[in-house]
Amino acid sequence: MNELEFIAALRAMASEPAARGLEDDAAVLEIGGESLVLTQDTLVQGIHVREDEDHADIAWKLVAVNLSDLAAKGAEPVGVLISHMLGTGDERFLDGLSEVLGEFAVPLLGGDTTGSSGARRSWTCTALGRATHRPVPDRRGASSGDAIYVTGTLGLAMLGIDEDERNIGSAADLAYRRPWPLLAEGVALAPLVTAMMDVSDGLFLDCRRMALASGVSFHLDSGSFPVAYPARADACVRWGDDYQLLFTAPLDAALPVPATQIGLVDTRGFEPLWIDGRAPEGDWLGYQHD
Amino acid sequence: MNELEFIAALRAMASEPAARGLEDDAAVLEIGGESLVLTQDTLVQGIHVREDEDHADIAWKLVAVNLSDLAAKGAEPVGVLISHMLGTGDERFLDGLSEVLGEFAVPLLGGDTTGSSGARRSWTCTALGRATHRPVPDRRGASSGDAIYVTGTLGLAMLGIDEDERNIGSAADLAYRRPWPLLAEGVALAPLVTAMMDVSDGLFLDCRRMALASGVSFHLDSGSFPVAYPARADACVRWGDDYQLLFTAPLDAALPVPATQIGLVDTRGFEPLWIDGRAPEGDWLGYQHD
Repeated sequence: MNELEFIAALRAMASEPAARGLEDDAAVLEIGGESLVLTQDTLVQGIHVREDEDHADIAWKLVAVNLSDLAAKGAEPVGVLISHMLGTGDERFLDGLSEVLGEFAVPLLGGDTTGSSGARRSWTCTALGRATHRPVPDRRGASSGDAIYVTGTLGLAMLGIDEDERNIGSAADLAYRRPWPLLAEGVALAPLVTAMMDVSDGLFLDCRRMALASGVSFHLDSGSFPVAYPARADACVRWGDDYQLLFTAPLDAALPVPATQIGLVDTRGFEPLWIDGRAPEGDWLGYQHD
Repeated sequence: MNELEFIAALRAMASEPAARGLEDDAAVLEIGGESLVLTQDTLVQGIHVREDEDHADIAWKLVAVNLSDLAAKGAEPVGVLISHMLGTGDERFLDGLSEVLGEFAVPLLGGDTTGSSGARRSWTCTALGRATHRPVPDRRGASSGDAIYVTGTLGLAMLGIDEDERNIGSAADLAYRRPWPLLAEGVALAPLVTAMMDVSDGLFLDCRRMALASGVSFHLDSGSFPVAYPARADACVRWGDDYQLLFTAPLDAALPVPATQIGLVDTRGFEPLWIDGRAPEGDWLGYQHD
């Protein structure tokens, strides 16, 4: 049984509307007149974080990637639960956790602490948020005629992973080690977007996912991509890890935050994703995070 | 930095009242006029589940131990998020997940699926519940003069782990492989208990925790313990994994579910836990789950 089969089986189980068919960044649960937004991400040593990563950066990233999912739903954080495997670097983990929770004013609500039994370690965070706008943005809402936008620049995190020690503290280094969830931007955008998600796995892969979920085709113009390093433009857009917001909105919408229009939505054609009029070649659209 | 120091540092960070000082089985978040109960538990292969465990049993246990925490707060399940590391046994995992979610009518809301990259596997579940009674039972509420009760029998799960193949399907086998969260019992008890938690780590250890959290002393009468196997009474109460409910209530309370009185609460004395008038010898009170 491969990953796709496993996820397909989970989707068949997740029939509750709140689960959004497991196709969105988060679940949206109606409770007591509020819309509660729920997301959970696990980082595995050797897959999502390097073996030699500073554990303060692991803690930051663990929380930040979950807050980024809340941002994509226009939600304000309510709290997090953290599941932690004990081991080396725990003091640094606490430092980073304290920093990220303080920076975004997020309460620690609970979690679990386990031994690791000498194994390669993993960490799980569940983040809860309160929706600020309803309907809560969905990645399934893009419709024909919408413009496609992305915030910020793409590729900084990729440059950061190559940084040597002299560039600690540079924008690229911070983009990689300390991703910044765009919470205020997500709240500002929520009332006008037709679909929204964060770009974690590369622009092409995430555009394709949004197009598939929405039952439309995305037509992107590569000349418009806001890349951090034009000489490596293609790598910049495919790499991911930038946690910018990808969204669609009516062409005439007045955007409350800076963003770059990178294409247009059309009715579903032969392929879900077109770049400069051609379907992307090869399978490697971006980083297929497990 | 050891586990106790790590947890103490987390507690210092968890200043939000909803976190209950990380001393309870669950967080209790007030949202939209409801009390949302939140709990998260991780199972690590080789620590919490055996290497050769049927993965259907792992999935069942993963969800059931979280539902047991909801039960201890008198909460009805609203949904779960599951973080799963792919690997051998995934089809069986799906079977067990479907069974446990169906049995307790719990929606799957989301989660994460990752590779394991050769790491020892772990699984995390976050369960959300809606409190049925307020104040939501806390393990910090036991007070002098209360009676101490436990539901069911203790030690069945311990017997189950020793079962050979002939006894598959026996009560002991099921207690070990398929723990049963006492959701209906928790809801029935919530209005009258002064403190409640589930017994996951052995009666003595969990009684000690409740006494410490409540700032009282527990006096237990070993002759009253409802053990599954009197010849191994001591092991039965220390082993844990039975997921019975431990609670305190006024002496004259009319209990809505069967339970055994095992002692009395007194003001805090020299020790938090006394058994037959003596403080327990040695450090090994039960299973110190990491």
